Formats: sequence, structure tokens, C-alpha cells
Amino acid sequence: MKIEQLSLRQDRADVTLTAYIQDARAGEQGERCRPAVLICPGGAYCFCADTESEPVALRFCAMGFNAFVVRYATVYGSGVERIEGPVMYERRWYPTALLDVARAMRAIVDRAHPWQVDVAHIAIAGFSAGGHMAALFATRWHEPGLWRAAELHGGPVRPTAAILGYMVGDECFQSDDTDCEGVRSSERVRHVMKRALAGDDPGRDVLRDLMPARLVGPQTPPTFLWGTASDATISPINILSMAQALAHQEIPFELHVFAEGPHGLSLASRESASSDEMIRSEVAVWVSLAECWLENRGVLV
Amino acid sequence: MKIEQLSLRQDRADVTLTAYIQDARAGEQGERCRPAVLICPGGAYCFCADTESEPVALRFCAMGFNAFVVRYATVYGSGVERIEGPVMYERRWYPTALLDVARAMRAIVDRAHPWQVDVAHIAIAGFSAGGHMAALFATRWHEPGLWRAAELHGGPVRPTAAILGYMVGDECFQSDDTDCEGVRSSERVRHVMKRALAGDDPGRDVLRDLMPARLVGPQTPPTFLWGTASDATISPINILSMAQALAHQEIPFELHVFAEGPHGLSLASRESASSDEMIRSEVAVWVSLAECWLENRGVLV
Repeated sequence: MKIEQLSLRQDRADVTLTAYIQDARAGEQGERCRPAVLICPGGAYCFCADTESEPVALRFCAMGFNAFVVRYATVYGSGVERIEGPVMYERRWYPTALLDVARAMRAIVDRAHPWQVDVAHIAIAGFSAGGHMAALFATRWHEPGLWRAAELHGGPVRPTAAILGYMVGDECFQSDDTDCEGVRSSERVRHVMKRALAGDDPGRDVLRDLMPARLVGPQTPPTFLWGTASDATISPINILSMAQALAHQEIPFELHVFAEGPHGLSLASRESASSDEMIRSEVAVWVSLAECWLENRGVLV
Repeated sequence: MKIEQLSLRQDRADVTLTAYIQDARAGEQGERCRPAVLICPGGAYCFCADTESEPVALRFCAMGFNAFVVRYATVYGSGVERIEGPVMYERRWYPTALLDVARAMRAIVDRAHPWQVDVAHIAIAGFSAGGHMAALFATRWHEPGLWRAAELHGGPVRPTAAILGYMVGDECFQSDDTDCEGVRSSERVRHVMKRALAGDDPGRDVLRDLMPARLVGPQTPPTFLWGTASDATISPINILSMAQALAHQEIPFELHVFAEGPHGLSLASRESASSDEMIRSEVAVWVSLAECWLENRGVLV
């Protein structure tokens, strides 16, 4: 394997794409392309969580993917791993963060040859706020305005599948939060996330553009969703609404809501866990379920 | 193991409770109670499907339960295994069928001693129309009127957990179906099911009483739900609405919607399959996931 890091924007050094490009399989003749997965880590739009980056990339590599991690623009940028002190909301990160995801997708396609990527099989995966970005990209990749705003040429990139873990969804943008600084941690995370993304006083139109379930349509690829029913930070109602929208639009999907587990489980394995509480063997099966689903859908070829 | 069949009503010989009572475990001293599960087979309220009866009971026995199958009142009664020819809607089967489920629950509690049942751990499970019965019982067991109508004394029986497979849910009673005799098989099943249960022209009040998601409240036990996204007979929207209601009411739940598989999979194993198409190893994992969930919830002790 070779690992490369690419800067996605001249104005922000922390907005990057990390590529995990595997060697050819033993016995392969000449070059052989692999399917790709673009991973969007979470972090409440304040940071990009390392626990949802490299460990996830390596697990998808183990399935046979060439894996990519996009570190999109956030409040703190890189180097910070949790929300600390008063958050400095200098600006809002929508649509900037989403444009960074589009830049990452474009970069993978533009470098398909050296990175040995099969451009017909590029999945997008995300967790929490990154699951929100992945879901927004999966529902809005066909909008010409998105690519124009990102100053990208060469046409839109269609994701082949989406994998959404404990996603931030429509529910998070429907309720009117008051300022929650100092109150319960889970409420604060929601408030900070929403304010970091959408700003102080987002109009109704901006909020509607942030609701992936509302935006599901024929352009949306098959989607695998998972989370936990006991997630106190981001309610499973967000995932269920997304699944409802997929069912209504007859987009193929698979959904697993496990009974127990806190927010932010990532792989739910020792490798991705920041504490013992985050090691959950019963939830960790989502990875095998997703692998099986990707194989059956022909994404993993 | 000993197997007993009990008649639940004097006026209908085909309304029965079949009990699968296991021997004491090796090494056990004296008597030892087991948790119980009452299984409600589906069959569109026209019959009670054998594929969702004994094979399921034996699988739950293998987990450690004493298992029970209720054959509630349906159009054809026993001996018919699919909807054939014009259905004779002599009467509607609501609330009759639900009262039969209550009778079965009461019978288990009344015979807890000879059947070695731990009355604090009685789960209810169901598939399709039987999933609807199980969900209605799980949401309405606390209504005194239910037990009065069934002429049962001794107080209500609280289910400890519910396990709902590809359930008929609120969605099925929300849309106005026209008469679908002769049209697409899946539409016909829905139409027949609704008419068999609720009659020709059910009032809005009757339909509302048949919507388990609408009825979810603090009385509802922890619930495990599963189905397939590609179910063309009963849309997965029914399961998703039930999960949404459980999430809103903060009732613990676990939910698995597998991507592919037809309606009526039961265990999705060779043992329960009526054709090769019904053997689905990817879906059959619901049983292990349910077993794990029942253990973690303390139902399986």
C-alpha cells in the first residue's frame, strides 16, 4: 500500500484528501482497478475525528477498496479532537464543507489512473456530521450549482453507494434550538454542530438545503444506514427519516439500528475506540453487514 | 420436550394454543422455569401459516424458551395455507383475532406452573399479520376492555418484549384501497388482509385502533423489529413507522431492515422455507441478532 495526502484547497492547508492505495493483488496481471470509498469523518463541523478516519479507511481496504479520507473545512480544522471552550463561530461551514467533499470526489476521478480506481464504483461513507455530508452529497451530487460553486470542471461525480453511520439528518435542522452553551453535553453538541454548519440565524431555505431525507430522489444511490437506538446525541429518528424517504422513493437500502451504544462508535472495535465504552462487539457487526451488502450490490467487485 | 395443544375457545376448534415445553436442563435440580415466547403466525387474516409456526417455535426453544404458537381466528381457519379463490368475508376478524391472542397469553400465565414458565419473562413474537397482532397486543395489553371482551379474569398480562417480523403496520390501514380482486398479487394480499380483519367499510375509529405505531406508549415493551427493504407485499414503511414511534416514546428497540428478500421469510432457513427463494442466509441472521438482543435485555435468562 502507498499513502498519499493531497491538498484540496490553496487557501486552507488542513482541507486534505488522504489516499490509501493498495498494491495489486497477488496473482494479478498488470494493472487492476479497485472500487473506491470516500470516507467523511464526523466531528460536529468543529473538527474531523481521527477515530472515524484511518481505522475506517484500513477496514475498507481490507474489503478490497482503495480508501480515501476527506478532511473538510471545520471550525477548528485539524489538530483538535473535541469541542473545547467557547466555539469561535467566525463563519458558517455550509456550503464550504460540502464543496470540499465534491472536490475530494473530483480528485479521486481525476487521479483514477495513478490511483487505480474503478470510477464506476465509488462509494461515499460518513459518520455523524460526516454522515450528513455523505448523505447531502448522495442527494445533491447532480446539482450543477454544486460543482460550479466548487469551481470544478469535468462534470458531476455520481456516488455508487452511500454508507451512513449515526448520521446527522433532517431532525437536527427541524427543531428550533435555543443557545445551549453550558447545558447538557448532548444538546450542546447538537447546537454547536448546527451553528457551526448553518450560522447564527439560518433562513428556512438554508435549513431545507441541509435535510437529506427531504432531498432523496431518483438520483440517490443505494444506501446502507446504521446507528444505535440509545444514541443520546443524535437521535435515531434522523436515520429512520432517511430510511423512510428511501423507501418512499424506492431506492434500495439496508438499515440496522442496534439497541445499545453511545454516539460516535465508528467501527466499534478496539482499533477505533477512544475508550472502553466504545468497544461494542454487538454493534461492530455493522461492518460485516455492510461488506456483504456492498458485495451483493456489485459495488465491491 | 412435551408438546400440548389447548383449545382456546369452545365455539371454534381451530383456535388453539400449541405449547412446546422443554425438559429441565441437564444438571438442573428440581423445577426450573423458563422464559416463554408466544408466536403469532401470519397469513393475511385468512389462515395461520405453518411456516411461521413450529419451525419458529423450535428455534426459540433452541435459545432456551418454552415456546407457544397461537392459531387465532381467521377466514379459512386451519388446513388452508394460501389465499385461494374468492375469499368469503362472512364477518370481520377484528377484534376476535386479538382476543384470541389475549386468551393465549392468559392461558400461558394460568398454566405457568405445569408448563414451567417464568411469568415475568413472556415475550410475544409475530410475522406479517401475526406481527400486527403481536404489535397490537404489545401496545394495547393494558386496556381493561380487551380482557373484558375476551371474558378473561385475573388481570392483564404484560409482554416483556416484542419481536416483529415484516409486520403489517399503520401504513396498511392509512390508504384507501379499492377492491383489488384479480389485480397484482401483492395488492390483492393487502386488500384481502385489510378486508378480512376490518370488514367491508371500517369506520375511521376501527382503523385507528388497528395502527400499532399510533398506539405506542409507555406501556409498550422493548421491541425488536426486522424485515426487508424489497418486500413488495407489505412495505418496510410499516416497520419504519413503528420504529419511529418507539424512538419518539423512548421505548428501547432494535431494528434490522435487510436489503433483499420477499415477504414471508420466517426464519429464512431451509427449515422454514416453502421454496428455494425463501432460503436467505443474509436475512437468517435476524435470529442470532434477536437472540443476542433478548439476552442483553434480560428476557432470555
